[in-house]
Parts: sequence; C-alpha cells; structure tokens
Amino acid sequence: MIRRRVTVLGSTGSVGSSTLDLMARAEETGAGAFEVEALTGGANIARLAEQARRWRPKIAVTADETRLDALKDALRGTGVAAAAGEGAVIEAALRPADWIMASIVGAAGLKSAWAAAGTGAVLALANKESLVCCGPALIQRVRAAGGRLIPVDSEHSAIFQVFPAEAPDRVSRLVLTASGGPFRETPAARMSAITPEQAVAHPNWSMGAKISVDSATMANKGLEMIEAAYLFDMPQDRIDVVVHPESIIHSLVEYVDGSTLAQMGPPDMRTPIACALAWPGRIAWPAPRLDLAALGRLTFQAPDLDRFPALALAREALRTGGAAPAVFNAANEIAALAFLDRKLGFLNIAAVVAETLERATKSGMTFGSGDACAAALAVDAQARGLARSIITDLAKAA
Amino acid sequence: MIRRRVTVLGSTGSVGSSTLDLMARAEETGAGAFEVEALTGGANIARLAEQARRWRPKIAVTADETRLDALKDALRGTGVAAAAGEGAVIEAALRPADWIMASIVGAAGLKSAWAAAGTGAVLALANKESLVCCGPALIQRVRAAGGRLIPVDSEHSAIFQVFPAEAPDRVSRLVLTASGGPFRETPAARMSAITPEQAVAHPNWSMGAKISVDSATMANKGLEMIEAAYLFDMPQDRIDVVVHPESIIHSLVEYVDGSTLAQMGPPDMRTPIACALAWPGRIAWPAPRLDLAALGRLTFQAPDLDRFPALALAREALRTGGAAPAVFNAANEIAALAFLDRKLGFLNIAAVVAETLERATKSGMTFGSGDACAAALAVDAQARGLARSIITDLAKAA
Repeated sequence: MIRRRVTVLGSTGSVGSSTLDLMARAEETGAGAFEVEALTGGANIARLAEQARRWRPKIAVTADETRLDALKDALRGTGVAAAAGEGAVIEAALRPADWIMASIVGAAGLKSAWAAAGTGAVLALANKESLVCCGPALIQRVRAAGGRLIPVDSEHSAIFQVFPAEAPDRVSRLVLTASGGPFRETPAARMSAITPEQAVAHPNWSMGAKISVDSATMANKGLEMIEAAYLFDMPQDRIDVVVHPESIIHSLVEYVDGSTLAQMGPPDMRTPIACALAWPGRIAWPAPRLDLAALGRLTFQAPDLDRFPALALAREALRTGGAAPAVFNAANEIAALAFLDRKLGFLNIAAVVAETLERATKSGMTFGSGDACAAALAVDAQARGLARSIITDLAKAA
Repeated sequence: MIRRRVTVLGSTGSVGSSTLDLMARAEETGAGAFEVEALTGGANIARLAEQARRWRPKIAVTADETRLDALKDALRGTGVAAAAGEGAVIEAALRPADWIMASIVGAAGLKSAWAAAGTGAVLALANKESLVCCGPALIQRVRAAGGRLIPVDSEHSAIFQVFPAEAPDRVSRLVLTASGGPFRETPAARMSAITPEQAVAHPNWSMGAKISVDSATMANKGLEMIEAAYLFDMPQDRIDVVVHPESIIHSLVEYVDGSTLAQMGPPDMRTPIACALAWPGRIAWPAPRLDLAALGRLTFQAPDLDRFPALALAREALRTGGAAPAVFNAANEIAALAFLDRKLGFLNIAAVVAETLERATKSGMTFGSGDACAAALAVDAQARGLARSIITDLAKAA
C-alpha cells in the first residue's frame, strides 16, 4: 500500500485534478492511503473548495489574492484553513509533506517548485519552467535536501522509468519522441501562412493554446531536450529526437551494450502522474492499455530541422549553457504569444528566439549570484523584454 | 569493470562463441577481466582447442567420447586438461564459477544446465529444454543455491531487462513479440503444401533447421510462452503474443498502472548475451544501434491461431500443467524432425503435438518423484515415443 502525505501545488489544473483523482481511486481500491497537507489553486474557487471538502487538507490556498473571501466562504464549516496570494502558495509548498506535485504552470510555478525542492519531499514536477530556467540548481537543491525529483510529463517519465539512476554511465543516448505536431507534413512554402487556429489543433493531446503552438513549432521538444539534458545529466549531442506521430513510444534510453529500453502506452497524462505518485511502487487504475495489434503500426521519421528550427536552437542554447536555455524559454513564450495575438508570423517565432539568443549571448546575459530561483526569474524578465523589443522592431520593419 | 570466473557449456556453438567474443572485446577495452574455469564443446575440436589456447581454462571438454585423443593432441603444450563424454561435461558444469553460460542445445543441455543450476553461480541460460521441461524445479534449484538465472534468448532477455524481479505484482501482463515466421502471410489453403526448404528460410534470424521449423509453425513462440510463464511466474492468460515482423521490439512488460516497458534493438543474439554477461552492469561493444527514423515503421498484428495452432497448444499445455509442457516440447521436436525428413506434412506437426498431448494427459503421463532432471528426461523419452507412434499411425492411415 502506498502511503503519502501529499501537497498539490496547482490542484485545480488538469495535472493537479488528475493527481487527486488517482489518489481517490487508489484509496477506493485499498492501494493507497493519503493525507493531504495543502492544496493550492488559482481562480477556480469552486473546484478548489470541492477538492478541499473531499481531502480535508490543513490549508487550501488560492493564488488570487482577490478571492480570499470567496474561498473562506466556500470552506466555511470544513475546518480547512484558507489563504491567498503568491506568498501563501510558497508557504504551502514549504509545509511538511512526503510528496509534492508541482503543477502550477509558468513563472509562478517556478517559485513554488523551488520552495518545494528544498523540503526533502519527493518532488513530482510538471512545471517546465523550473527545470528549463534553473534545472541544475533545482536538481542540486532536491538532492541536498534528501528529496527525489520525478518528472511528470510523458517523455521524461518514460526516460525516468527505464533510466539507471544508480549508474548513468550505462547509458549511451536518450531518444525523445515527438508527435511532430499538426504541421509535420506541411510543405515549407506553406508554413509562413500558418494561422493560430491551425496551430492550436493538436492531433494527439489536448492542451492549452501556448503549449499547442510549442508543439506546432516543435519548441516543446526543444524545451524537453533541455529538461532531459538537466534531469539525466546528458550532453545535447547524446539526446536525439525522432518524430513518431502516434505518440505510443513516449521516449527511449539506449544503453552502451546496444539495448534500448522504452516506455510505451496510449497517450494519457495520468500514466506519468500515476507513476510519480507510486514510485518506486506502482498503482493500478483503469488505464488505457496498449494494444499493438489493434494499432497495426508505429511510424518514425527524422525531424526536419529546416522546417522546425526550434530543435537546433535548443541545442545551441544547451551548447552555450549558463542562462541561454532560460533565454530560449522566455523568448519562445513571448514569440508564441505574439503569434497567437497575430503580431508575429509562424516562421518568425523561431526567428525571434534565434535573435534573442544571439543578442543575449553577445550582451553577456547571465545568472546573477545568490538565489538561483531569483536569478533565473531575473534572466527570464530580461529575455522577455529583449524578445518583445525584437518583435516590435520586426513589426516596424514590415 | 566486470570481473567473472566463467564456464561456457557449449562454447563452440554460436551462443558460446559469441560469449567468448564479447569477453575478449571487454578485456581489450578494459571493461572486463575474465578467468575461464571450463569450456565444453562438441565435435568441433579445432575450435574448442583454439578457444582453450586463447582463454586457458582449467579444463576443456568435448562431449564426444571418440574425440578425446584429438582434443588432447590439439591441447598439447597448453597445460589445459582435456576430458570427454557426457559425464565430463556435467563435471565441468559443477566446477566453481561465478557465471556459467548454458548453451548446449537439446536434452544434453538440460543435464549440464541442471548441474550448473545447483552451484550458486549466475546461470545464463540459452538451453530451452531445461526451462520447458523442468522450469519450476530448475528455478527453485538456482534460488536455493543462491544463484541467479538470466535468460539469454532475445524475448526473455527483453522481459528480464524491464521486469521488476523484486516486485512481480506490479506487472499485469507480458507481451511476447513474434516475427511470424516465413508463412505469416501464407493463405491457410496453401499451408499443407509447405516444404522443408520453404520452412528453413527464416527472414530475420539465421538459425538451425529444427528451430527454423519451430519459427515457421510458431511452436517456438509456444515454447517461449512456457519459458516466460516459468521464468516470470505468470499464468498463461497474462502472456500475450503479438506478431511483429521486423523483430525490433523484443518483448514488453505491461505494469498495473498502464505503463508498458519494452526492450528494443536490431535483431542480434549478442545483445542478450552481453546483457547476461554484465548484469546488473552493462558492457559496451560495437552493437548495431536502433535507428527508428531509418526503419520508418514497425508493424504488428494478432497471431492467427487457426493457421498457427501451436500457440493454443502451448497455452493448453500450461493450463494442464505438470508434465504437459515437457510433452509439448518433445512431441513438437519429433514432429518437426519428421517434417524435415518428409515423413509428415507441415500442418500435421501441430496435429501430432495435439494428439500426443491428449494421449499423454489421458494416460496420466507425469513426472516421477526424485530428481526433477531425471524425471523430466523420462517424460521427454516417453513423449517422444508416443509422438513417434502417432506419426507411424498417421503414415499407415494415409
């Protein structure tokens, strides 16, 4: 039986909600027993309160300071304390727990994941920014506190499940699989005309608009390459990407003896969440099962680096090192949002990232000394400003 | 660095020779250091002597008693002792070693594997008969002696590499992949006319004639299902078979949380041998690397149980339990050899196996008490006799 004292940062989002669903299922079947220390959510007070009534955490926190009264009202009579604001979210992350799901998206997620990383808890990490922007420091922080970091997205969970953490020198190569996104087969000549509506229709996973754009540009795979490099301490030239439109093989680890281990399954975020929740155990839930005969075939192709320059830019950022991966992330987010706002053409997303990386490197943009989280956020802000000014210049030039 | 005192039973065969080649390579690169305790071979004295000169074992043994003088001549001046005969092979298996490769084929292989299993060494097992005929007893014997059994064929090595030996209850299902053999696409109406020449042309692996027939009938997959059931203590209804003509995914383990782990790679027997040699470490060798983009696609289909009844017969043998899997193996070998001798039609191979299983079950054929190896060999001999008489009756009836 899996016993955990759990905190879920971002409990009202899809990853957080799935985490609580899996916990409930495990309790029903007798596979798990959970105490919940803290739940934190955003603006969806109704869902947060519903979760708090079910799980009776010590505290429920909304990141939105204006909704404290609404949360207090919703929790009346439950005995669950209520709090609000960014500081309260970070305090929730610092509370004693065995297992913390860090699934707040974006920069806000970085701060709370950083706080949780210092507690010694197992840190189930769904927030990408914290790894991309300050991965080495975050990993070091988890290790120093005696905790363990478990990645929750499907590709890194796949690698995690077949990676020999105790002997990484047994590994020769990581292979990230990529769906290839909606423009996998789109001729280069047509790519400049891609619209936001076309870009947010993802074939295999349902996800938010910005993440869908990242999938369409393959910047998501660039970000995952950076995460993989940090998580598994692997140089970028030992991380390959293969396009695999069916998204059944979630990633692979090649060993020095030529054996390649992989994790597979129908695309479902609950599988990596369940894996992280029970690790090193496993918990049963009514997961969709892999039926290779019914699938009939799995296909693969090399990524087209000309049509998807984000992959090469991510490698360049890793080669440059230091703050460059954080700059890549910030520039990509600003450019993707500008594209969604129709202020930037599809192909210019990568152009803005490339220009931001180049100018940041030339200007010596780097992490300041002191707290790594604060330093990462400072670089993030600088890089966003730089990307915005590049986009403005592009608009003027056009 | 991998250090082992090694004995290779069947060193002149392809598995044995590859084992020594991998050891030599590991010594050259500084990845391994090996002492060889004993080498045993068959009629190929020249190769056995060459191996003995390279590795300087304490003893070299030929199973062929008539070749003792030839072996002594070939080893003159080396200081390596020579011996011959079945008893000497078994004595070699009993010598103190850390790691024993049991790669003698057939019933002779069973006796020496059984002997090795009792020594407490790691037992790298390439001999199928010892598992199929007395798997539970063999596994118990290895465990009782404090050893470890590591399967060497590609399917079971794949499962072994992703199976949680410390917590088998985390597994919901094993999936064995099958090439489907040369008649995967042959219409049922044409299968009765299949000739031995057609049957021995295997698309992916080069192998001996009898094993090629097993691949053509899919009896090999039936035997592997029996081995998997014993090795991983899994009931037959939790072992699936999927036809995968490219033989890239070597088998899969599905966990209770829906995650499926697999081992993949270009088909090459040296990969499972290298895995067994270094386990739990890994040794580098110039292995062929998996290139999914170059492969382009992997295909899968459900096995056709009507055209390949051997799979259903193997399940039936596992359901019956006791001596039935050993009867399956013996009847299949006699029938396959009769087919190669043109004394039996292709479709009658399975018919003979089915009839032998039925008569053996009705007559209460079972393992005697006492030594499990001797009991298995007795059942094997009885079942072979029964299968031969069924073949004779079929010939008379025709």
